[in-house]
Amino acid sequence: MKRTEEDKFMERCLYLATKGAGYVSPNPLVGCVIVKNGEIISEGWHKIFGGNHAEIDAFNNAKRKNISVKGASLYVNLEPCSHYGKTPPCVDMIIKEKIKKVYIGIKDPNKKVNGNGIKKLINNGVEVKYNILKSECEKLNKFFISYITKKRPYVTLKIAQSIDGNIALKNYKSKWITGYESRMFVHGMRSIYDCVLVGRNTVVKDNPGLRVNNKKYRDPFRIIIDANSKLNNKYKVFNNDDGKSIRITSNLAKYEYDVRLSSSNGNFNISNLLKKIYEMDFNSIMVEGGSVTFKNFLKSGLFDDIYYFISSKILGDGIKTFDNYAFDTLNKSNKLKISSVKQMGDDVLIIYNK
Amino acid sequence: MKRTEEDKFMERCLYLATKGAGYVSPNPLVGCVIVKNGEIISEGWHKIFGGNHAEIDAFNNAKRKNISVKGASLYVNLEPCSHYGKTPPCVDMIIKEKIKKVYIGIKDPNKKVNGNGIKKLINNGVEVKYNILKSECEKLNKFFISYITKKRPYVTLKIAQSIDGNIALKNYKSKWITGYESRMFVHGMRSIYDCVLVGRNTVVKDNPGLRVNNKKYRDPFRIIIDANSKLNNKYKVFNNDDGKSIRITSNLAKYEYDVRLSSSNGNFNISNLLKKIYEMDFNSIMVEGGSVTFKNFLKSGLFDDIYYFISSKILGDGIKTFDNYAFDTLNKSNKLKISSVKQMGDDVLIIYNK
Repeated sequence: MKRTEEDKFMERCLYLATKGAGYVSPNPLVGCVIVKNGEIISEGWHKIFGGNHAEIDAFNNAKRKNISVKGASLYVNLEPCSHYGKTPPCVDMIIKEKIKKVYIGIKDPNKKVNGNGIKKLINNGVEVKYNILKSECEKLNKFFISYITKKRPYVTLKIAQSIDGNIALKNYKSKWITGYESRMFVHGMRSIYDCVLVGRNTVVKDNPGLRVNNKKYRDPFRIIIDANSKLNNKYKVFNNDDGKSIRITSNLAKYEYDVRLSSSNGNFNISNLLKKIYEMDFNSIMVEGGSVTFKNFLKSGLFDDIYYFISSKILGDGIKTFDNYAFDTLNKSNKLKISSVKQMGDDVLIIYNK
Repeated sequence: MKRTEEDKFMERCLYLATKGAGYVSPNPLVGCVIVKNGEIISEGWHKIFGGNHAEIDAFNNAKRKNISVKGASLYVNLEPCSHYGKTPPCVDMIIKEKIKKVYIGIKDPNKKVNGNGIKKLINNGVEVKYNILKSECEKLNKFFISYITKKRPYVTLKIAQSIDGNIALKNYKSKWITGYESRMFVHGMRSIYDCVLVGRNTVVKDNPGLRVNNKKYRDPFRIIIDANSKLNNKYKVFNNDDGKSIRITSNLAKYEYDVRLSSSNGNFNISNLLKKIYEMDFNSIMVEGGSVTFKNFLKSGLFDDIYYFISSKILGDGIKTFDNYAFDTLNKSNKLKISSVKQMGDDVLIIYNK
């Protein structure tokens, strides 16, 4: 499909928006361009939680260069806010700066404000067009949209397995099953998700650091499921120099990073677990294992996609990806939808949507 | 890479050659074009086992239309034969017809004749160029090359599994795991392989017909591994109306289609099994299951590629693709090479080479 000029300016907004990835959560990723006579005269984006919104950033950048935005068009991938939050409402500024027309990607998914920004703009004589590159805009802010509309973080299961469905050898001497490209890709994912989450057994068997190996990027929070507080603080994941370790336990808090949540027989209800993570203002988690944790998320149905890395190795009788989870008919089994397929070095990455 | 004129004529030979697929085994697939002033003036291909070779077919077609081939160039994807077989040697005919130059894909893989055809042509004043689209020519005749050089049929494991490594539910109520596109693709494969092969348990649990559902194409031979002759003749696979059922057994022959091979404790040695199939003049087999048979082929290392169909379903605790096969280190596990990856409906087909 041919891209229109509007699409191209919106694509630029989306690109600018991604620069905030990993830093603005639980807020949305937003980029903004101001256009006059078919040329971009200023740009901005939402850089950090609590900082200026993208529109304000674009206005400030124009002012710094003494560029007049009067009568210009403004493109932004999310409906401008009309309420007082950490910053004054963007629609007021748009009106004050005499912007002629506003092109909006998608409406604010928050039902309470949905459309109010647009209404106020129109009532003040600003032309508005919205739903430009709608699905791209929704995809970019899938974390934020889940946070607002489902009141839970967006959940990605990240699975790395042998072609025949094992995440490890029986003796766990199988580091690593997938190759360099896949592992580097996962490090990139970690720099964008608010948190990574693993079960207790993965900590014991693999002792992962769960950080981003490229120091240019920020590390995610590390959530460890350990209902009975069986883990001691010697594991890498509890090296809390950055204050980002969180252990979810049903026991009395023992370490500074312990967060309490009631369990039944040492098992957390996934819905309760996600509610807890939501209440901590996290909008996204990547579940990295192991087989019990994957099984629990799969059974709950509370996940959004699976990043499935398939190694070209055959491991035979190993640790199955989903622990002890049986069906008696195909209808009851989990059917996923393929979103994309690509070769990644010696592995294949299949992204499934639920 | 840019295709030269030579490449294009050789591609045409390869295309023509494929028309014989399924009908010329164990002989090679061969196509031929005769070119004058940059135009194809005649074409031919090897149509059926025992029939005219491609070169002779092309000469005959030219004669039928009263077209002179004198001084023309001849393209053929495999070195013309120089020995008397079921038909007279093609090089003699090429010399007699006064072809000026012969463009050859690959030499005859048979060490005994390898290069002899070329030598005879050159000694008789015919110009020769060879190794044109070498790897494509080798790929097209991989069955024939295996038959000649390894003295065993080319072996493809065709696996259809859930994403988490199960070929069936525990109760076998899982027909089918993969979707329509994948299954139709497999029917196409059956029409090209000399034989499909399954183990006894697959016959009992699935009762497959193992034929091609499109009657335009020919069915493969059906080889059933049943060392102790436990199967009765009521299963679909033994409907021998076409004389293509073969049971390999170590017992006394009971049915007309029984072929004897000695086993140890009811297990066939895969190398012996392939020797037996080779001696029946089959150049290719597709192994369709089940988990014990897949395990035995994998352990033997006697296979050439795997067509791995991965369904978007998760089955949990089912029948594992490879039965009861464990490794203690990653080094000992089977590492494959990805040849291609593509989405096929709701499935992904990964082709691995060994």
